[in-house]
Amino acid sequence: MKVAIIFGSKSDIDKMKGAANILKEFYVEYKAYVLSAHRIPERLSQTIREIEKDGCEVIIAGAGLAAHLPGVIASQTILPVIGVPINAALQGYDSLLSMVQMPKPIPVAVVGINNSYNAGMLAVQILSLKYPELKENLIKYRENMKEKFIKENAEGVEL
Amino acid sequence: MKVAIIFGSKSDIDKMKGAANILKEFYVEYKAYVLSAHRIPERLSQTIREIEKDGCEVIIAGAGLAAHLPGVIASQTILPVIGVPINAALQGYDSLLSMVQMPKPIPVAVVGINNSYNAGMLAVQILSLKYPELKENLIKYRENMKEKFIKENAEGVEL
Amino acid sequence: MKVAIIFGSKSDIDKMKGAANILKEFYVEYKAYVLSAHRIPERLSQTIREIEKDGCEVIIAGAGLAAHLPGVIASQTILPVIGVPINAALQGYDSLLSMVQMPKPIPVAVVGINNSYNAGMLAVQILSLKYPELKENLIKYRENMKEKFIKENAEGVEL
Amino acid sequence: MKVAIIFGSKSDIDKMKGAANILKEFYVEYKAYVLSAHRIPERLSQTIREIEKDGCEVIIAGAGLAAHLPGVIASQTILPVIGVPINAALQGYDSLLSMVQMPKPIPVAVVGINNSYNAGMLAVQILSLKYPELKENLIKYRENMKEKFIKENAEGVEL
Amino acid sequence: MKVAIIFGSKSDIDKMKGAANILKEFYVEYKAYVLSAHRIPERLSQTIREIEKDGCEVIIAGAGLAAHLPGVIASQTILPVIGVPINAALQGYDSLLSMVQMPKPIPVAVVGINNSYNAGMLAVQILSLKYPELKENLIKYRENMKEKFIKENAEGVEL
Amino acid sequence: MKVAIIFGSKSDIDKMKGAANILKEFYVEYKAYVLSAHRIPERLSQTIREIEKDGCEVIIAGAGLAAHLPGVIASQTILPVIGVPINAALQGYDSLLSMVQMPKPIPVAVVGINNSYNAGMLAVQILSLKYPELKENLIKYRENMKEKFIKENAEGVEL
Amino acid sequence: MKVAIIFGSKSDIDKMKGAANILKEFYVEYKAYVLSAHRIPERLSQTIREIEKDGCEVIIAGAGLAAHLPGVIASQTILPVIGVPINAALQGYDSLLSMVQMPKPIPVAVVGINNSYNAGMLAVQILSLKYPELKENLIKYRENMKEKFIKENAEGVEL
Amino acid sequence: MKVAIIFGSKSDIDKMKGAANILKEFYVEYKAYVLSAHRIPERLSQTIREIEKDGCEVIIAGAGLAAHLPGVIASQTILPVIGVPINAALQGYDSLLSMVQMPKPIPVAVVGINNSYNAGMLAVQILSLKYPELKENLIKYRENMKEKFIKENAEGVEL
Repeated sequence: MKVAIIFGSKSDIDKMKGAANILKEFYVEYKAYVLSAHRIPERLSQTIREIEKDGCEVIIAGAGLAAHLPGVIASQTILPVIGVPINAALQGYDSLLSMVQMPKPIPVAVVGINNSYNAGMLAVQILSLKYPELKENLIKYRENMKEKFIKENAEGVEL
Repeated sequence: MKVAIIFGSKSDIDKMKGAANILKEFYVEYKAYVLSAHRIPERLSQTIREIEKDGCEVIIAGAGLAAHLPGVIASQTILPVIGVPINAALQGYDSLLSMVQMPKPIPVAVVGINNSYNAGMLAVQILSLKYPELKENLIKYRENMKEKFIKENAEGVEL
Repeated sequence: MKVAIIFGSKSDIDKMKGAANILKEFYVEYKAYVLSAHRIPERLSQTIREIEKDGCEVIIAGAGLAAHLPGVIASQTILPVIGVPINAALQGYDSLLSMVQMPKPIPVAVVGINNSYNAGMLAVQILSLKYPELKENLIKYRENMKEKFIKENAEGVEL
Repeated sequence: MKVAIIFGSKSDIDKMKGAANILKEFYVEYKAYVLSAHRIPERLSQTIREIEKDGCEVIIAGAGLAAHLPGVIASQTILPVIGVPINAALQGYDSLLSMVQMPKPIPVAVVGINNSYNAGMLAVQILSLKYPELKENLIKYRENMKEKFIKENAEGVEL
Repeated sequence: MKVAIIFGSKSDIDKMKGAANILKEFYVEYKAYVLSAHRIPERLSQTIREIEKDGCEVIIAGAGLAAHLPGVIASQTILPVIGVPINAALQGYDSLLSMVQMPKPIPVAVVGINNSYNAGMLAVQILSLKYPELKENLIKYRENMKEKFIKENAEGVEL
Repeated sequence: MKVAIIFGSKSDIDKMKGAANILKEFYVEYKAYVLSAHRIPERLSQTIREIEKDGCEVIIAGAGLAAHLPGVIASQTILPVIGVPINAALQGYDSLLSMVQMPKPIPVAVVGINNSYNAGMLAVQILSLKYPELKENLIKYRENMKEKFIKENAEGVEL
Repeated sequence: MKVAIIFGSKSDIDKMKGAANILKEFYVEYKAYVLSAHRIPERLSQTIREIEKDGCEVIIAGAGLAAHLPGVIASQTILPVIGVPINAALQGYDSLLSMVQMPKPIPVAVVGINNSYNAGMLAVQILSLKYPELKENLIKYRENMKEKFIKENAEGVEL
Repeated sequence: MKVAIIFGSKSDIDKMKGAANILKEFYVEYKAYVLSAHRIPERLSQTIREIEKDGCEVIIAGAGLAAHLPGVIASQTILPVIGVPINAALQGYDSLLSMVQMPKPIPVAVVGINNSYNAGMLAVQILSLKYPELKENLIKYRENMKEKFIKENAEGVEL
């Protein structure tokens, strides 16, 4: 396992699938966990230890409301932690600010509200520094994306 | 010790003094701690255990930015935790939302931004349920406050 | 009666049920009132007096818009008042700010928007300082919650 | 006395002077009071009764933070209440929302943040419906203002 | 006609009906106009002149988005203008700020977002200063409202 | 005169100078006016007529608070109106929203808060469609800006 | 082609149609492009060059989220760029701020959220400086709009 | 060079130094560039190519206002890009939203407002996946930080 995807409730599965999908597309091994910083703090700490032992290199954590999960994880590991603010109230402002305004020296790498897809992509970009085959695939992915985009919109658009 | 006042940095002493002042005024024993949810999570957990053993009954926690401190404490104790959002950026919105939007079932009792005075007063009100002499003093305090307010403004005001 | 739950309109029953449910679960006696700070201020004052005489120890007050109810109650009692901001407009920002920014020395203990469940839980935590059986039940409740959470998510999650 | 100007603390005198100044300019009798909805609710109620007996016709109320003062006054009188949100935190958003979002059927007539001048002017406009000499003066005031504005900027401006 | 209700589009009829309903209840004559500050500024000016000649004493103006209507009207009359911010985007924040932040010396009396009911009530309160029968009816209305509220909630509420 | 710069008070001269400076740099004739949508609406209308007759092609209007000035101007002319939100309160949010959320079909072309420089530049870009020498100068200006930027930062930066 | 309408995804067609409709009404030639600042930056640059060669005079660019499209285009052309903030999250605040707060000297002319109609109208107003027949049509359009508005609301409105 | 630190103006040096300081502390080679997405887009593109050739592995980009810089860089490289929102207006909200709300599939890893220290730390955490000596140093750094924090606050705090 290279990436752990952690979130607080099975009800967030749909919002976190974007991360899993992009990891699958790049054949990056990942494992998903439902864990909570507030409900089971000891179990969370224990799982972070296990994840580290299993060779995990990047952690993606999604949470809503007072979204402490990514910050609490980041305080217990030196692995890069990517935060996905989930819109559960206030359009996600509460979650965004609870993640992004982390005091030094414990950063969380925050992506857009509900945008777990970008979290997965960021994980791939980080891992590609170390794994040359990922880097090659990323370059191809970008090329394909561009070609696809241009092709889909080749005939122009009727407005 | 009946109340523990916890905050993340000595630079916040001035903003947290309001809580201590009101506790002193009511002769409520308290102890202040500089602790951080992100920098020393294990030590924080350990201190919460010690505080509980020392008979602490209410915890006041002040923090700025992505203010996880009160929520992280609340997740590790059943004592009521009062949160003081400190304005370190964004006028305190980040801190307020990081505290008040706690998911169930772990509440934080949030008071106004930078208003540690009200946090101390809320602690006194909570403790007065159990300690009759505090209740009497609270009633007197309110009466005195009213008398003082009326006296100070008795002659009216020139505008 | 140990807890009074006060809110401004029968239309808010669904949003306030969370508080009642958690109090029931802990066998804490409560009574619910529909009262308004703006429509019937004298009746509200009178009810606060009656509630105090009936031995009430914690008041939970829910309101939306310019949500004065908890603050107006807090100005007329020394009992701890827990405020539940209800989203009736502006996603609840108006209600949240109308409650949490109480000037000294009259605090309101504010929980999350629409989160009356946490208000009930906070009331239980406050009462458990005085009532040892509640304290025991709280400890058990937390243990059960943890076990349940871990059990429910034991097999991991498919993403 | 035709207008009562009420605010919560002598420290707000400077911010409320604009209202007094415009009333003086129109020779409208007014009286200023330092009163608090939260600190001395009974005295506030008593003063509202006295103000009404003294023939007051419009009430201007200024407050900051969780600014309940104008709404609490409005709930105890049928006189029009003009609210002046004072910026004491959050740039006055808390005060603005605590005043303007009053639930029906108890309105507060809210003017701009810290803009007690406009509150005084609105009071004059309301009173001029009943007092013909005020109406005449208002018409003159507007004419003078226009002339003065045009005169002051007659030679154009160097940019 | 004592009150003019002005708004920018027939599509806002439902949101402005609250004002008309309360005026009807108090037998206050009113007339409604669909007018726009931006589309037909000259016609708006002309109508303001006519309204004044017809004896109108209070103007209620509702608008959404960059809601200039009440301010533009206020700049052309000395009658009190009550603004109703309508939520057409951004939950009504744009409309609220476009109305309430009027520079001196041209105030708009702003009520809650979409709350035309309170605008109507404020108009009645203003008119009752001059018309004794309205004052009596207002006192009765308040009494009835209180009685009705107490009656409706007499048996308490099941939570 | 090709551009009119209009704003509401001499106290805004400093914030509006950026527009004048860039127009001078391009030798675009402009004239500045202190005018107010709320204080002297008739004079504003009259001046718009004069400006049009004098051959003005673009209007830049700066205002703070409930910043109606650019919208009111736009409703009385078919010339493009560029709005500069000035920060007089709420960091300029009130002014920004009062300008940018103009209802159809009366647009205001809004630039950044306090950014009159960009307003001047936008005016030049618009005029350059019609005046070839302006177009040439714009191309040179951009080239010079790039060269200057690169030169100033050529030796890199010590961090 | 006089106007290019550029936006990031076919899913935004409905929100951008307003611009096309108004251009059609004025017989202004336009062409629509689906292009992305982030996905295909090189192709975007290339298209801007082509658009300029084809005689385009105004560019309308719509985008949501971190809406860089209009600013990125503006940095590569001296043509005036009109930005339409599209509401894809946070009610469009993210998009609005990403467009309007452009640093000097690269302005974007921003219109209201989702208001592509006003973008089209602004384009017509800009072009009418150069094309006399457009100016005449604009004057007629405004007159027709006024007449239509007055006619539609001639019988008054029942409230 | 392993890290490139890019920002738009020499005036931001102080706000970006935090990143450089932490990189120095870990002996990570970095190079700083003053570059602008809007002023010199072609040079920015060229520099990104050079940076990549020089072996850069992580890019830190700081910007204020409509902060396109990190997103524009991210669209032209597959290296992970860390964004530092700089408060130049609106307390940094504009910059934060312009960075964090990046559409898929081009993520920016956003840290707190003005918090370039955390950006540097995140870069170190990312690089430590590949460079074992960095990993060891990170573990030591965290241990030292904890010890230092505990030591500094060992005698408790006087409140």
